[in-house]
This record gives sequence, C-alpha cells and structure tokens, in this order.
Amino acid sequence: MSKIIDGKKIRNEIIEELKKEVKHYMIKPCLAVIQIGEDEASNTYIRAKEKACDEIGIYFKHIKFNETSKEIEIINKILELNSDEYVHGILLQLPLPEKFNAEKLINYIARNKDVDGLTDINIGKIFNNKQGLVSCTPQGIMRLLEEEKIDLEGKNVTIVGRSKLVGKPLIGLMLNKNATVTICHSKTENLSKFTKTADILVVAVGKKHLIKENMVKEDAIVIDVGINKEDGKLYGDVDFDKVKTKAKKITPVPGGVGPMTVAMLMTNVIAAYQRQQKKSQ
Amino acid sequence: MSKIIDGKKIRNEIIEELKKEVKHYMIKPCLAVIQIGEDEASNTYIRAKEKACDEIGIYFKHIKFNETSKEIEIINKILELNSDEYVHGILLQLPLPEKFNAEKLINYIARNKDVDGLTDINIGKIFNNKQGLVSCTPQGIMRLLEEEKIDLEGKNVTIVGRSKLVGKPLIGLMLNKNATVTICHSKTENLSKFTKTADILVVAVGKKHLIKENMVKEDAIVIDVGINKEDGKLYGDVDFDKVKTKAKKITPVPGGVGPMTVAMLMTNVIAAYQRQQKKSQ
Repeated sequence: MSKIIDGKKIRNEIIEELKKEVKHYMIKPCLAVIQIGEDEASNTYIRAKEKACDEIGIYFKHIKFNETSKEIEIINKILELNSDEYVHGILLQLPLPEKFNAEKLINYIARNKDVDGLTDINIGKIFNNKQGLVSCTPQGIMRLLEEEKIDLEGKNVTIVGRSKLVGKPLIGLMLNKNATVTICHSKTENLSKFTKTADILVVAVGKKHLIKENMVKEDAIVIDVGINKEDGKLYGDVDFDKVKTKAKKITPVPGGVGPMTVAMLMTNVIAAYQRQQKKSQ
Repeated sequence: MSKIIDGKKIRNEIIEELKKEVKHYMIKPCLAVIQIGEDEASNTYIRAKEKACDEIGIYFKHIKFNETSKEIEIINKILELNSDEYVHGILLQLPLPEKFNAEKLINYIARNKDVDGLTDINIGKIFNNKQGLVSCTPQGIMRLLEEEKIDLEGKNVTIVGRSKLVGKPLIGLMLNKNATVTICHSKTENLSKFTKTADILVVAVGKKHLIKENMVKEDAIVIDVGINKEDGKLYGDVDFDKVKTKAKKITPVPGGVGPMTVAMLMTNVIAAYQRQQKKSQ
C-alpha cells in the first residue's frame, strides 16, 4: 500500500511560512491578475489565488477586461503594471477568449514580474539552469518530491504530456536534478513501455484514469497532475484506487499537486518582491 | 550495412543555395565574430566560419580581444554591434578564458542577431515552438534527418548528452516533430537500456567510442556529434566501424554533423538578415 502524498498539508505549511515572512514587510507585496472575459473555471481559480493572497497578506489586484476589449488595451495595461513599482507579480489568467493571442500577450510581462514563469525568457532560463521565475505547477511537483525526500539523481523519470505549463518546463527541472528524463505525449507509440520503466512517473494529460495499474512499476512514485471533472466529481489521470496498491507513493486528486500550484504562485510573488526590493535599495 | 550520411555533401548544397540567394542583395549580410584570447581550436573554428562566409558572400567581421580585456569592454562592443544596422549576426566564440562569464555575455546579444541561438530567450522559443534563431548543431542534426527523409513522429529518440549547445535544444526540436524523447547523461544508470530502444540515437558527449555495437538497435539511425582528437586523428562518440554494420544510417566523424554546424550558422545569418531587412522597410 502506498503512502499518499498530502499536497494540502504541504501547501498549508508553505502558506504559513510566507505569512511569517510578509509580517516583516512595510510595503505589501502585490499580485495583479488580469482576467479577460468570464470563464467559469477561471473565476474559481482566481478566487483560490485571492484567498491565498489574503491568508498571507499579499495585496490582490484583480483587473477585468471584457471579451470585446482590444488587444492594445491589454498590452497597455501590462506595460503600466510592468512599470508600477507597487506591483510585484503579474499574471494573465488563462485560457483567454479565442480572439486573443496568449503567447504574444504573456511576453509583454516583464521577466521579473512574470510569476507564472511562462515568458520565453523564463522558460529558457530553466534549460540554461539559471535563476528565474519557474512556472507554478512544475515547481510544485519538484517541491513535493523534495518534501518527500526523493532523490532524483540517476532516476528514470517519465513525463506524460508535453504542455507548456507542465511537461516542458518539468523536463528542464528534472534534468537539473540529474534525472534521466523521457517525455511522452499523444503521438507516443506504446506508452506503457515508457511508464513501466519509470521510477518517478508524472502524468499531466487531462484524460481520466489513463494510467492503469499494469502501466506502473512496482514501488514507483506517481505524481498525478490531471484534473478531470465528471458529474461534479474530480478525477486524476491515474486510476488512483488501483495504482495506489502498487506505487510506493502517490498524489491524490484532489489534494495532491493542485494545492501546490497556488502555493508556488505565492512563493513566486514573494521571490519577485524580494528581488525587486533588493534592486531598488 | 548502413548508409553513411554525407554531411559534407549536404553542407555544400546549402552553401550553394545561400550563395545564389546573397547574389541578389545590394547590402552584404554581415557576421561579427568576437574572439577573446587565443584558443587554438577556436582559431580553427573561426577560420572555417570565415571560409564559409567568403564562399557565400557574407561580410566577415573578426573582432579580437586580449585575455586581459575587461568585461565591460566586451559588453560595450556587443551593444555597439547590436545597434549597428550593417551587422546582422553576432557570435561570441566559445570557450572563453576562465575569468569571463560566457552565460552573462551571451545574453547581451540582441535576440534577432543571436545566430548561435544561445540566449535564454532563443532557447525558450524552441520549447514554446516559436520562430527564433536555433543553435547550429541541433539545427544541423534536424536538417540531416530531414534531408534523409526520416519521419520522427512517434519515433523513440534517445539523446545522450545534455549540453546547452546540443542536447538540450534538441529535446525541444524533437518534441516539436512529435518524437518521444529520452535524454541521458553522465548520471544515467544503465545507459545501454536507453540507447538500445532508440529508433534514432543522437550522441553528443565527447567520449571516443562510448557507443558500442551492442548498445544500438538493429536498423537504428545513429547521429554522432562527438569530435575526439587522438594522435592527430578525429574520432566520434560512436564505434563507427562496428556500429555501421548494424545501423540503418549513420553519420561519420569527420564529415557528418560537423560540416552541418557551419552551414546552419550561415543559414541563421541569412535568416537574421532577411528579418532585419524586412523590419526596416
């Protein structure tokens, strides 16, 4: 029987630490979240971010645009926030309404305020093993593994899913920890060949119960990033009830990687704040 | 018996194409190479670059600094070249003398003149699957595979070596072609387990004959990036004479990937030139 990794508990510890840190600041750290349109899931995610900000003492600035807004208005707002010394982190809530080019807009965010770590330059820094702002979900996964004292050096890590938000940055982070990394995706033939050899298996695809018991090595560490909603219930990409009898450690959905993502966003806001304060002294 | 991939022939074809292209330009494309100190291998590499520039009709600007030069002098020179409209490509010849921080200096090069593709932002663009300048050796490998009409979708690609110049950018390029990618390195345990399953095996480590016949799958495509000098002779990372009896196609050393690197540098200079001319119109 595997140990279930408690992401919520670790999340709460991180929030507590950050709260203690912020207590000493005269000026509040500020996170600006730009939302375009009224995506329902986005509303939920933004509320979770606001809640975490409130807990810690981070000033939460919610900037809303209509779907009918022009691109130039969004760009101007980003540029304004970039040069506002009281704003330390800027985040563009994804997904955007179809007519907007997220890639383009994200890259207007100043690299040192890019708390989602999605600008080209911050992605590049991961692969050049340099300090930048690292996207929140992959960073959360690394933190979970660290808290669980899992040594990655020389280990076989298989990542399923190559998204910009999770899989791709994770390759760089895992390499920086000296893991041997295999990255699989929708075009991979014979997926189980790669999942079965993994010491650490990370799944971030968005397909309910894609990973079955027979696709996992005995005593593997299984990290499930999937969030699939069905009849109001949440399911991961891993068939949790079965796989947990085989894996050494496993993250549940919900309560595994999810809570870590917000905690890492908060960590990034504080890191960005500290670097900006240091620079202005 | 495998087909030996003739990098030199493909290199010559590319140079010929570029020559025809440059014939139509009123203003010559210009590549500026900055050299610090007098590394012997660097002298050889720079001569090869100058030769290719001469063949094509690219103006070659060789800027030399002493080892005793100050960092700020190099930075000022890079900034000057960045804003010089008659310079289209800038390259800092590596390795630098020890006292210099290559990572720092490289990132002063303007992204649109970074023909070596080594700035953080150009590395990031590969992983975000966006048009940027791609580093020359990995780009040369992709071009070789393209010329040989090797379909990468769903194929197992194993890359041995995770350097910034070859292995890491190659992960992104291979993913963009829908390959399943495994990246191995000095900390990988049981290397042959990963090399043996590769449909396409790329080796960029710098260890003479690291890859033996029994580490390669029957009918694999083997790309050897290693250049190891011993008693005045060049050897690859692959035990060529043995492996060629097993692989479907294989690159020799010398005459495989090596010539492609310079050809891709020239391709980058012309691409940078074209984009800059377009922008100024």
